[in-house]
Amino acid sequence: MTATIAPDKTKQTFFFISDGTGITAEVLGHSLLSRFEDLAIEQVTLPYINTVTKAEAVVVRINTLGDSPQAIAMISIISPEIRAIIKNSNALVLDMFEAFLSPLEQLFGRKADAVAGKAFNAKTNNYLQRIEAMNYALENDDGSSIKKYHEADVIVIGLSRSGKTPTCLYLSMHFGILAANYPITEDDFERGDLPAALIANKEKLFGLIIDPQRLTTIREKRYANSRYASIQQCEFEYRELERLYRRYNIPFLNSTVLSIEELSTRIMLEFGIERRLST
Amino acid sequence: MTATIAPDKTKQTFFFISDGTGITAEVLGHSLLSRFEDLAIEQVTLPYINTVTKAEAVVVRINTLGDSPQAIAMISIISPEIRAIIKNSNALVLDMFEAFLSPLEQLFGRKADAVAGKAFNAKTNNYLQRIEAMNYALENDDGSSIKKYHEADVIVIGLSRSGKTPTCLYLSMHFGILAANYPITEDDFERGDLPAALIANKEKLFGLIIDPQRLTTIREKRYANSRYASIQQCEFEYRELERLYRRYNIPFLNSTVLSIEELSTRIMLEFGIERRLST
Repeated sequence: MTATIAPDKTKQTFFFISDGTGITAEVLGHSLLSRFEDLAIEQVTLPYINTVTKAEAVVVRINTLGDSPQAIAMISIISPEIRAIIKNSNALVLDMFEAFLSPLEQLFGRKADAVAGKAFNAKTNNYLQRIEAMNYALENDDGSSIKKYHEADVIVIGLSRSGKTPTCLYLSMHFGILAANYPITEDDFERGDLPAALIANKEKLFGLIIDPQRLTTIREKRYANSRYASIQQCEFEYRELERLYRRYNIPFLNSTVLSIEELSTRIMLEFGIERRLST
Repeated sequence: MTATIAPDKTKQTFFFISDGTGITAEVLGHSLLSRFEDLAIEQVTLPYINTVTKAEAVVVRINTLGDSPQAIAMISIISPEIRAIIKNSNALVLDMFEAFLSPLEQLFGRKADAVAGKAFNAKTNNYLQRIEAMNYALENDDGSSIKKYHEADVIVIGLSRSGKTPTCLYLSMHFGILAANYPITEDDFERGDLPAALIANKEKLFGLIIDPQRLTTIREKRYANSRYASIQQCEFEYRELERLYRRYNIPFLNSTVLSIEELSTRIMLEFGIERRLST
């Protein structure tokens, strides 16, 4: 496992080690690291560490890095035997289950199940719902179909290349939400009104805006030196769009400064939509 | 906040409370709960709890549920003042930062930054890379374009409706990986070979298979009573596909039993592809 990799001994490494996908340990470790922004730390995820042999190879890899700086390991591992092996390494070990399972076991009055890798399971109803929702987002992307808007939880609208599709895919993939999206174009501004299919679903509309300067940069990559990508055009569309949102009292957010995680969270909050997690 | 909701006092509630999106607390709490599988626990995410007023409303909501069963709260909140308010509620409070930040602060020799909601930030290079990767996945979906396969980190292949698109979208959205996908059809089996564009990129191919029974169910929903959806056809395609994978020595996995999180993790592991997290 370590033979082919020449470790960088000067850079501190944060390992996310799991007997499953490693995604939980990664999300947690990443969140902790985001609070030490100036530190340049190598992040390494080691999934499916579910045997003694694999755990021992991980320890060799950690110890090869030396003690200065000391490596860090966030571990999400069920087997006490495998945990003990990793804890015997040179790393500062943060044990996800150790920290939180015993208060929960006490509250529930029983031991936790000892089956690894159940957090991301393909066989739950919510998992199937998430896949269905992704199919819905793809079929109702970019105004390609407007027939199923009555099924939508939310219809995201905005200019071309303002982040509608990634936001809808995030909403569907993570939360099983039915999210359609529709592009507002110059035609709509000339007509001075929203398309009928949107007006009929006004209470589901959520708008995105994007700074004209950012929009022109994105569009230039696609159609360089076009009127479509010009700053004049982007500024015109921005002004007209904001006017439309205000006229119809449509809630909207700026995708220039918000990530798809933040946009999705705020959209769900705005509409009081329940998250459909894979449980 | 609680006025309009009549709480179900018989069901235990697990709150994920955050000053940001709540996604980290949710992923962590969800992972812990997955080890108490038989318990029916209501999961409620409360994002953007970033003022004293909002925190006090949360406490009212928690305390309205009563003590039996006791509510649980996983909190990811930076402000000590707001944390103290939530901790004063009737819930069993699990504090994400408290558990892991002090060992890290000690190791790094300084206090953590006191800025909330930085884990999911739109302004990092990796965030932009993830969005670019999503665009790549959409443009190179379902064989719609084969011109950019030289840029791909991985090309996922498999039968129609076997989970290629959701897997590629997950790989791109979470890890910034360039993932194309291509459908293997009856034409390929009749010709007895893979398309030239795939053979030219053989080292990037990863196959999915899906149980014939599951495939026929999925296809029936789209085209009921068609030859395409029949069990005979699905069994035929399954056999031929497996033969093709083995002949070309293409690694493959069964998407009937593995989630997109598990498939993505195993694909990255197989090819040694580095995750490009938003840091």
